[in-house]
Amino acid sequence: MVIYDIEDDKVRNLISETCKDYGLERIQFSAFMGLLNRNRREELYLKLFRIVENKKGKIIIQPICEKDDKERKIIINEKTKTDR
Amino acid sequence: MVIYDIEDDKVRNLISETCKDYGLERIQFSAFMGLLNRNRREELYLKLFRIVENKKGKIIIQPICEKDDKERKIIINEKTKTDR
Repeated sequence: MVIYDIEDDKVRNLISETCKDYGLERIQFSAFMGLLNRNRREELYLKLFRIVENKKGKIIIQPICEKDDKERKIIINEKTKTDR
Repeated sequence: MVIYDIEDDKVRNLISETCKDYGLERIQFSAFMGLLNRNRREELYLKLFRIVENKKGKIIIQPICEKDDKERKIIINEKTKTDR
């Protein structure tokens, strides 16, 4: 899982494009997730590191094992009720 | 780890306050993390579920085991270089 806080639009786009290049899928506005082995994860880390070098931002790369992956809970609400 | 995409400021604040109530710490603008046993996690899930009920938004509650917790990598840059 990769989650990031990046102010600059261009840098943020570069981050998301890089995540997509590594086969990750967007799970939140600023979060991606996907299957990566340790080498690919390390490679992605270095790429992301280079992208935000000298730019303001924070990126977290969080490995999640298969067991925890199954325990994820998601709450989604697409629409707002008009009557509050 | 709790990460969320919530448009409404009030709802977003309520989410972050609830995470803090459960002892979680902010790790990104819209992400919290902390130690919770299964019961507390389930309790937090239900509280967050109730908060976003009928509101637009998405919340992910992702358990992370001790092993993965140690493997987390963080890239932080506080300041921007003026000379691009």
